[in-house]
Amino acid sequence: MSGVWGKNIKFSIFGESHGKAIGITIDGLKPGIGLDLQKINTEMARRAPGKNRLSTPRDEGDSFQILSGFFNGRTTGTPLCAVIYNSDQHSGDYEKSKNLMRPSHGDFPGHVKYKGFNDYRGGGHFSGRLTASLVFAGAVSRQILEQQCIVIGSHIKSINYIEDKSFGMELEEDGLRELGKSPLPVLDRSAGNAMEKAIIKAREEMDSLGGIIECAAINVPAGIGEPFFDSLESSLSHLLFSIPGVKGVEFGAGFDISKMKGSEANDCYCMVNGNVRTSSNNNGGISGGITNGMPVIFRAAFKPTPSIGKAQRTVNIETGKDEILEIKGRHDPCIVPRAVPVVEAVTAMALLDNIM
Amino acid sequence: MSGVWGKNIKFSIFGESHGKAIGITIDGLKPGIGLDLQKINTEMARRAPGKNRLSTPRDEGDSFQILSGFFNGRTTGTPLCAVIYNSDQHSGDYEKSKNLMRPSHGDFPGHVKYKGFNDYRGGGHFSGRLTASLVFAGAVSRQILEQQCIVIGSHIKSINYIEDKSFGMELEEDGLRELGKSPLPVLDRSAGNAMEKAIIKAREEMDSLGGIIECAAINVPAGIGEPFFDSLESSLSHLLFSIPGVKGVEFGAGFDISKMKGSEANDCYCMVNGNVRTSSNNNGGISGGITNGMPVIFRAAFKPTPSIGKAQRTVNIETGKDEILEIKGRHDPCIVPRAVPVVEAVTAMALLDNIM
Amino acid sequence: MSGVWGKNIKFSIFGESHGKAIGITIDGLKPGIGLDLQKINTEMARRAPGKNRLSTPRDEGDSFQILSGFFNGRTTGTPLCAVIYNSDQHSGDYEKSKNLMRPSHGDFPGHVKYKGFNDYRGGGHFSGRLTASLVFAGAVSRQILEQQCIVIGSHIKSINYIEDKSFGMELEEDGLRELGKSPLPVLDRSAGNAMEKAIIKAREEMDSLGGIIECAAINVPAGIGEPFFDSLESSLSHLLFSIPGVKGVEFGAGFDISKMKGSEANDCYCMVNGNVRTSSNNNGGISGGITNGMPVIFRAAFKPTPSIGKAQRTVNIETGKDEILEIKGRHDPCIVPRAVPVVEAVTAMALLDNIM
Amino acid sequence: MSGVWGKNIKFSIFGESHGKAIGITIDGLKPGIGLDLQKINTEMARRAPGKNRLSTPRDEGDSFQILSGFFNGRTTGTPLCAVIYNSDQHSGDYEKSKNLMRPSHGDFPGHVKYKGFNDYRGGGHFSGRLTASLVFAGAVSRQILEQQCIVIGSHIKSINYIEDKSFGMELEEDGLRELGKSPLPVLDRSAGNAMEKAIIKAREEMDSLGGIIECAAINVPAGIGEPFFDSLESSLSHLLFSIPGVKGVEFGAGFDISKMKGSEANDCYCMVNGNVRTSSNNNGGISGGITNGMPVIFRAAFKPTPSIGKAQRTVNIETGKDEILEIKGRHDPCIVPRAVPVVEAVTAMALLDNIM
Repeated sequence: MSGVWGKNIKFSIFGESHGKAIGITIDGLKPGIGLDLQKINTEMARRAPGKNRLSTPRDEGDSFQILSGFFNGRTTGTPLCAVIYNSDQHSGDYEKSKNLMRPSHGDFPGHVKYKGFNDYRGGGHFSGRLTASLVFAGAVSRQILEQQCIVIGSHIKSINYIEDKSFGMELEEDGLRELGKSPLPVLDRSAGNAMEKAIIKAREEMDSLGGIIECAAINVPAGIGEPFFDSLESSLSHLLFSIPGVKGVEFGAGFDISKMKGSEANDCYCMVNGNVRTSSNNNGGISGGITNGMPVIFRAAFKPTPSIGKAQRTVNIETGKDEILEIKGRHDPCIVPRAVPVVEAVTAMALLDNIM
Repeated sequence: MSGVWGKNIKFSIFGESHGKAIGITIDGLKPGIGLDLQKINTEMARRAPGKNRLSTPRDEGDSFQILSGFFNGRTTGTPLCAVIYNSDQHSGDYEKSKNLMRPSHGDFPGHVKYKGFNDYRGGGHFSGRLTASLVFAGAVSRQILEQQCIVIGSHIKSINYIEDKSFGMELEEDGLRELGKSPLPVLDRSAGNAMEKAIIKAREEMDSLGGIIECAAINVPAGIGEPFFDSLESSLSHLLFSIPGVKGVEFGAGFDISKMKGSEANDCYCMVNGNVRTSSNNNGGISGGITNGMPVIFRAAFKPTPSIGKAQRTVNIETGKDEILEIKGRHDPCIVPRAVPVVEAVTAMALLDNIM
Repeated sequence: MSGVWGKNIKFSIFGESHGKAIGITIDGLKPGIGLDLQKINTEMARRAPGKNRLSTPRDEGDSFQILSGFFNGRTTGTPLCAVIYNSDQHSGDYEKSKNLMRPSHGDFPGHVKYKGFNDYRGGGHFSGRLTASLVFAGAVSRQILEQQCIVIGSHIKSINYIEDKSFGMELEEDGLRELGKSPLPVLDRSAGNAMEKAIIKAREEMDSLGGIIECAAINVPAGIGEPFFDSLESSLSHLLFSIPGVKGVEFGAGFDISKMKGSEANDCYCMVNGNVRTSSNNNGGISGGITNGMPVIFRAAFKPTPSIGKAQRTVNIETGKDEILEIKGRHDPCIVPRAVPVVEAVTAMALLDNIM
Repeated sequence: MSGVWGKNIKFSIFGESHGKAIGITIDGLKPGIGLDLQKINTEMARRAPGKNRLSTPRDEGDSFQILSGFFNGRTTGTPLCAVIYNSDQHSGDYEKSKNLMRPSHGDFPGHVKYKGFNDYRGGGHFSGRLTASLVFAGAVSRQILEQQCIVIGSHIKSINYIEDKSFGMELEEDGLRELGKSPLPVLDRSAGNAMEKAIIKAREEMDSLGGIIECAAINVPAGIGEPFFDSLESSLSHLLFSIPGVKGVEFGAGFDISKMKGSEANDCYCMVNGNVRTSSNNNGGISGGITNGMPVIFRAAFKPTPSIGKAQRTVNIETGKDEILEIKGRHDPCIVPRAVPVVEAVTAMALLDNIM
């Protein structure tokens, strides 16, 4: 069992990509919170495929329907359940190759875990499509956090070897919000152009690319999180590593902080306009597992989409023989741009759960 | 609240470094498991300070006492509680500087969160000393995993800029066990010597160093973990980020996988002696959140010990003024060697919780 | 937050009686369990209203749709979500009286808790209609328990002052199953006839009746449950007291055992055909919180339906004035017959969660 | 696993009656709460045995030691762990009879569940002694509730067939507090005298008696509890049924409400001095699972102590043969008087968890 997450709010996810619907139930929201459904739609649209030539031409139709917990434009305080019906399903595509375990997908581990009974069509419960439910839950969480002035934004730090600039010490609400409007948010436009070209080239080569997303949450008050076992880093990484394709998470200076000396790495405190601030932010806004009032900053590394058109060796789980697999169909040459709103969504979920 | 972790086993931690005792309760162990207390002692000794000139000369006296759940040499099936009494306390050291927030420690976030009521002596509940309880719980978990042939081992991948070799595809039980006997486990002895010198130099400079620990678990069967939300990466990272000082976690090729193409990154399946194996292990033994039968491999990045002798700027939380802080006392110039058994301990805890 | 229950299986409930749908997600079912949907329908029909003159003429249309977790006739092992769409809604009925707190309903406590934002139509999330989701979850649980030969059955022990016989020591599978086919299951047919007349009379008097349901689960193996805090009695009572209208729960001899001497009350062990049995069952099959292999027997007391046609005093929550309330509409004069499958459903849920 | 309870506060219990210690960890208390340790001692003394001729002459020495989470007289906000060391152990008494399953004890179910590895001495983890930890946790919870003016009190409603009066609609803080000072709290002193005589007589007859405890919590604000699944009745009954010996729980009019008509049972609302009140309290202060501002009232039925001196039939679990068991040693002829503070303790725990 694993489909329920949260201490103060319970998020219960369900669904398979080619079943009737996917969805999520959010239990523990305070009553009377006005939700702007149009803003939720906007977030969903950021993740939805088929928008441009950087993503799969599939049209997943990510329109949600709220089944409960929402009345007269406001949360009721009882569980809020939203479903997203599945459509545009070419389920037949999957039948003939169901025994060929796609490399680096959940197919084989899932086959073992579920003893062959899981819905294999389109990845089933492992499908990236389930992140649509996360985006819904994140969009709800975000609206509540925004009422406390907490703003979350992110940019694509790298695609393959192409690097964007990093977030600096100074982060502005407007700048973070502006990033959210771009299908390929970057700080350095020229890096963005190069990324775009690289993704198109990968598609042409029937290959795929990975990348790194850098995310920030500002105006998070000091004192959020726990020492053991639920450090804010634990909560955030827990959800980030639930996103298909994430293989690394780091906070602040992250892996690079291991190369600094204490005298370089320590974020020294100073009073600024009556507030405690730090003169550097190598800890990414979190010390001892708890926010210190500085921007929360972290990066998540995504592997290249495992679905590629190139021929690959694999095994046939029924025959127990090696075979060659050529994945047909419409796949994202790079999942990173569509993963940006997902990273922000789980960030909002983790922050809300800890702030409640 | 945060002191309880686990789905199938509940680990409840408690304690402050200068209170009466620290400890942990483990609920959910099967009855009748024989535990070798000497082996637990050996694990505790690996973490204990004061062993050599690489660590603090404090003698924390990590001897544990089992209060419950253990009878006639075996687990009873009811909650197993162990305590480690505190001793060798120089509590007075902390009184005078309690209002000076040590940079990059939990002091300030904790002060805000706990409204000044937390036990500030020696970091209190934030103290690295609490990891002794994790090592106890890990040592228990490990003995149970060993009965299923699962072996966990690790080495110091880097200290500052000094790099050890990486784990390769072939990992042997004996090799992993051998690493556990060294106070500074490395694959390349010369790298180890350089690390040792660097740590001693950092101590002399009243500074500190960080590093990276690479950990492997072998013989983990395929099918362990979950898709949403409790991927094995989620479980492991959740606990790893609970260890004081960890700022980054990556699995398999980790951040580097974001620079690979799909055709390079994908771990292709092949049959080897009737078993499904992969020809590379860029996913670190986990796909779709679930083990695939290959070695589970990950790295955790530790920041340099924030307690350094050098003068640092900080704020006095009582006066609201900037001050200069000089931390006296006995501190580890590099926590990484003592963190090795802690990383292995939480790995054992996460694996056991998922395998139960 | 409260909509999620279970240790080994997570049941997440959602919905309001006059919203789009109600439903439940079941996470933690093993993969590959064949489910007979027709049997689930049969259970749902037992609870559904409008079947006979003993219940409300509303037709709630309790047909369920499985959205996820079920593929090719079997559970997948991933969360199984089912929804029951709402229909036959006379929502307008509720608008005008929404400020009049119905006595002994959840209206007033809910109004305070949810600050007036809860969906008040038809009781909203407090509605007995939500028990349809419990019956779905129970029907799934029951099919799994039946594979282990565990059979659950119950009868109406009393309606008002009319008493049925009690379950004896000897309980047969066939007898329990037969009870499930009756809309008013009793051991003594003449008592049933009297109950039926009493209910019809109460309807004519615009009043309502309560009653007691006695439930048994047989073939439950010894060793199920826990000492602290999750005794099987704790699990069962936790769910039973979630059913709207339950005000008392007792196991075995229950309240009467408090009047026995130890020498009368103790269930003495004896060997019967190589099995440990007890010669009496005053503990209702549970000692020390754990099953002893004897039939699990308990009773749940239901209050009379609080919705009655008679004029009642109450307060208007908007004006703060006392008023007279006359509840119109179609209500059950006695909820007990329709509550029988609900009691059995939560029994199945609690047993399955503990047996997993 | 079952030793952890609570949604907002986690109570983790551990211990066996003849092990080193029993104890409890409370995680989730707010920081800065001043605790009066003397008051906790007073509560512990109410439960402790050996005070008078109504209870066992064993002196269990229920003095507690706080290991963590308490600093300078106040809670720190981190887990508060308290242990009670065991002493006065005649462990040898239990060795010879360990294979004779005491009727109506947890011996046999525990033997099956724990496969014979549980600590059988004195009931081990099943021992009533573990309720000392509950009383500690309850005493802490109670002090916090008292700051919100919530007062909990109870009396012995019956011992065997001897009945005390019932709590009426009017409950005063002083009266409830006064009850707590009596070793055998009753509303009708003559009933108390008769109970005392009956208990002494049962002891002389080597038999035991059961009884019913009625408990009230006043000044509990409206709006506490949940609809599904965590009604306040669910929370309270969950913990009450964890107390060894409880076989029935009822709220308000309880089982008797099943015999009322709706027009008799409904608690009609009326305004009293600007507050919403009910003119009767048949629901025991809880409707729809949530408090309505009236006194929370419930009763718990205790079975007679199963340890009696009279000869009883039972089985020898090793030989598989029927035998005669004569329980020696010092046992309570009636556990009810010592159970009063335990009932109040779990009431305080459940209320605090729901109010947090």
